Amino acid sequence: MSTSSPTGIQALIFDTYGTVVDWRTTVLEALRALGRSRSLAIDWEAFLALWETRAILDRVNTGELPWMTMENVHRLALETPLAHYGVTGLTDDEIDRLVLARWRLQPWPDSVPGLTRLKQRYVISPLSNASFIGMVQLAKFAGLPWDCIITAENARRYKPHPETYRTAVSLLGLRPEQVMLVAAHNYDLRAAQSHGLGTAFVPRPAEYGPAQKTDLAPEGAWSVVAKDFLDLAGRLGA
Amino acid sequence: MSTSSPTGIQALIFDTYGTVVDWRTTVLEALRALGRSRSLAIDWEAFLALWETRAILDRVNTGELPWMTMENVHRLALETPLAHYGVTGLTDDEIDRLVLARWRLQPWPDSVPGLTRLKQRYVISPLSNASFIGMVQLAKFAGLPWDCIITAENARRYKPHPETYRTAVSLLGLRPEQVMLVAAHNYDLRAAQSHGLGTAFVPRPAEYGPAQKTDLAPEGAWSVVAKDFLDLAGRLGA
Repeated sequence: MSTSSPTGIQALIFDTYGTVVDWRTTVLEALRALGRSRSLAIDWEAFLALWETRAILDRVNTGELPWMTMENVHRLALETPLAHYGVTGLTDDEIDRLVLARWRLQPWPDSVPGLTRLKQRYVISPLSNASFIGMVQLAKFAGLPWDCIITAENARRYKPHPETYRTAVSLLGLRPEQVMLVAAHNYDLRAAQSHGLGTAFVPRPAEYGPAQKTDLAPEGAWSVVAKDFLDLAGRLGA
Repeated sequence: MSTSSPTGIQALIFDTYGTVVDWRTTVLEALRALGRSRSLAIDWEAFLALWETRAILDRVNTGELPWMTMENVHRLALETPLAHYGVTGLTDDEIDRLVLARWRLQPWPDSVPGLTRLKQRYVISPLSNASFIGMVQLAKFAGLPWDCIITAENARRYKPHPETYRTAVSLLGLRPEQVMLVAAHNYDLRAAQSHGLGTAFVPRPAEYGPAQKTDLAPEGAWSVVAKDFLDLAGRLGA
């Protein structure tokens, strides 16, 4: 792992779902609560694996679908596993409880203490595919000490569209090489690096559950690789 | 003053220069420091009165001037008093010290304790004509406990352009009547009210110095009128 601190970095932007917070545990709980209240015998881990947004995000990025916030992306994406398992007749409230579970996620144990240290030296912001208000409410719930909130909604494009990284750099009033993306996902770091940003990989091997096979190790020449956010703070001199 | 709390409000957005922080004292100090280092005998209060941005902001809003951040608006506006007083040859660093003084302003005494109470019940954000990074750095310097940062830069238009209020409401995922603008300036509240937002007037009678004649009293039927942010928190049930 890298030991030198990149110089010139003034702001750190963080992928959030998976990198800062554990989305899977809480979303699975929300699905299981629905299963109990509706007496549905479903393998909810398999259901969750079908609740996939990437294809929709790509269609928004190409303009094939109009801009919609992540809550509406999740509502649309939910139709696939619901149809697959033959679940019908959910109320708007039931769907909202599933979708808005992502406003109330738990941070990984090192996230808040690590961010608190990093904030002393850097401007820290999410750069998430979440909606703006989704990131605001998550920060309030989880006590994430962001200096500001920047999300895909500010660019009206989803990562890894170039406009998301450019919008973040522009709002921060900096040059790309003064901003570092922190992420547990190699695809995100690859895109950020291609636009000149610094990159920090922090693996989150439990993000996708015990059988996770992706993003267990760095797959590029990232500026920094750190075990967790406290290790990252140490490596970045914070 | 109103005593009933408006119902349905979920987020408060704050004008910041003047309403939350005292910009005049620090900017005057920066001008006087320049005067000392350059041995300039100038009435800096009169100089400051000429350092006026409104005409430039209006030309940006009509599209006559391209979008520029508030730092660049202040740089451009500075040319008028500099020419008037025959000051020439300032370095970029000297100009930056004047312009960036607005990143390090003091909050009014009630601002941080009032915001801290209001944050328990509402989403709180600036809606300032400042640049995004200017508001971020000011929040770090002054300890303003915002949930997020929204500025004119997010709309690429300056208040009172309708797009600034609409952008804030949209990013907050709310309807206009669920958002209240808090401001010491009647013009700002008038615009917000015309777009359906709630309005709270908090007078800041020292914003423009001891001889201030404007915005000493409410000039409209605002939802709430409060003495300061602690009084506002009480009136809004926070």
